[in-house]
Amino acid sequence: MENDPLGYTVALGLPELRARIAKLYDEWYGIDLDPGRVVVTPGSSGGFILAFTALFDAGDRMALGAPGYPSYRQILKALDVTPVEVQCSAENRYQPTPRDLAGIDYEGLLVASPANPSGTMLEKPELAALIADAQARGAAFLSDEIYHGIEYEKDAVSALEISDDVVVINSFSKYFSMTGWRIGWLVVPEDMVRQFERLAQNLFICPTHAAQVAALAALDAQDELEENLAVYARNRQLMLDGLPRIGFDRIAPPDGAFYVYADVSRLTNDSRAFAREILDQAGVAVTPGLDFDPVRGGGTLRFAYAQSTEEIKEGLARLGAFMAARGQGAA
Amino acid sequence: MENDPLGYTVALGLPELRARIAKLYDEWYGIDLDPGRVVVTPGSSGGFILAFTALFDAGDRMALGAPGYPSYRQILKALDVTPVEVQCSAENRYQPTPRDLAGIDYEGLLVASPANPSGTMLEKPELAALIADAQARGAAFLSDEIYHGIEYEKDAVSALEISDDVVVINSFSKYFSMTGWRIGWLVVPEDMVRQFERLAQNLFICPTHAAQVAALAALDAQDELEENLAVYARNRQLMLDGLPRIGFDRIAPPDGAFYVYADVSRLTNDSRAFAREILDQAGVAVTPGLDFDPVRGGGTLRFAYAQSTEEIKEGLARLGAFMAARGQGAA
Repeated sequence: MENDPLGYTVALGLPELRARIAKLYDEWYGIDLDPGRVVVTPGSSGGFILAFTALFDAGDRMALGAPGYPSYRQILKALDVTPVEVQCSAENRYQPTPRDLAGIDYEGLLVASPANPSGTMLEKPELAALIADAQARGAAFLSDEIYHGIEYEKDAVSALEISDDVVVINSFSKYFSMTGWRIGWLVVPEDMVRQFERLAQNLFICPTHAAQVAALAALDAQDELEENLAVYARNRQLMLDGLPRIGFDRIAPPDGAFYVYADVSRLTNDSRAFAREILDQAGVAVTPGLDFDPVRGGGTLRFAYAQSTEEIKEGLARLGAFMAARGQGAA
Repeated sequence: MENDPLGYTVALGLPELRARIAKLYDEWYGIDLDPGRVVVTPGSSGGFILAFTALFDAGDRMALGAPGYPSYRQILKALDVTPVEVQCSAENRYQPTPRDLAGIDYEGLLVASPANPSGTMLEKPELAALIADAQARGAAFLSDEIYHGIEYEKDAVSALEISDDVVVINSFSKYFSMTGWRIGWLVVPEDMVRQFERLAQNLFICPTHAAQVAALAALDAQDELEENLAVYARNRQLMLDGLPRIGFDRIAPPDGAFYVYADVSRLTNDSRAFAREILDQAGVAVTPGLDFDPVRGGGTLRFAYAQSTEEIKEGLARLGAFMAARGQGAA
């Protein structure tokens, strides 16, 4: 800040940041990505606003899986795009399949892998099948990859490993731990860059300059980031061991992100009331499934484990005492 | 940053920042404003996106004056709201009047005072008449006040001095010189706060945390801000003296902001080509009026004077030489 007044940047973001993000695609996926296709955005939130307004008109329909990030629905509705939620099954690990999409009309398909709230990932063939489904209809394909980098037993697959004709959304908030800086990016098809640039210029002028400088540094903070990841991995193991023991045994082991989605339908059909009860009695904040799936979420909860390991241990102990007092611990 | 990881803030912004902004309304206008009505946004750009999506549905019509800030039109179109541009006259100093709005249907009316590109302000009776026009129709009234604080001979009037049933848009980019930080605010009617909060949470999560902290400090950096203002005032005087002397004599003296809008129709009917010629031959960047008024802007230019006084002097000298060489200087 002593050397640079940090005024507006160009709308697409600092060239050195776009180049460094492109290099990440080589490091993570072995992809040779043209930095010219990278659009730096004010968080993935800004990325969603930009992508949705660029790709869709009022009345268009966007297919997306439930359970899913609730703001997808709300941003789409605010922009007069109709969210069409596909009920994903536990057998498919809460990810949509082309079969789920049969008979549904859509102009866009949005997937998230690893997903929020389930933490599950799409393998390459499954992701490719969904991309093919969208492309066969001439629909846009959007891949929310904001949890990439936070994966435990296998690598997350980018939609860009399969096709260049997709829009990828990513963020510095998760793996790079920069939540409050509101900085993210898109990768868009080459022939759409100019359209996204014009729209970004009008919608945002530019992403926060200081956040762009910080993001550039974060991309090379490997040691610290891998330490964070080791914490998440320890926490995940504590959750996978601990939750079933205290009575939350219907969970899909998460491939990535820092969430566990649990079927608690044997305990409640009102996850909001149940989450409030847990908060009041155990002092532990969990998220009701209804936030992610208005249809079936009454019987599910999301547990997050991005906190410190000590907090996770304490939370599990409290949850265990709560369930035992309720007489609902595991047998 | 050593004491606070600067994670997400609440969607409406840091409470201490909202309280300090409310206090500004007392300092500037003698208004007692409830901090609960202040919504901190990612720049005024974020404020426009938030206000337009909160107030309008696809197909609604927003009346606004031409010439005006070009991104209004583009953001509205991206959100499928129809901009209805009213041709404002030089006699009314490029501000709309109720007479201009007669016979036009609209669900929203947006004014800017001081305006970009003209720098002209609406006096209190004129602003009140426009608010009354909108309210008589049950339409929303939006007041872009991002240049408040940068005014020269009289004080800018806030729409909040006239009515609480308006949405005010403001920014830390102009008077507070924080362009690249992307931080601004709205003041909204009390009964709309909850709706704006929910939408802001989904659209942005929160404004950049570090920018909020910096904005809080900027609100008390009076000495430095008044120094900037003194520079603008000197530059304005140089422009008002210099531009007519070198042949740009059809200008409205700007009440605020840091722009001069000049009628150059005796020199060109293609302001884009003329601006390019000035850039190429004089090395001075001016903005073609077509950016602000697609209908009549072929015959106008906008000069900006937010740079250093030395740069303004140099620019005027170069413009003078350019006009003299063209044989078009003043007699």
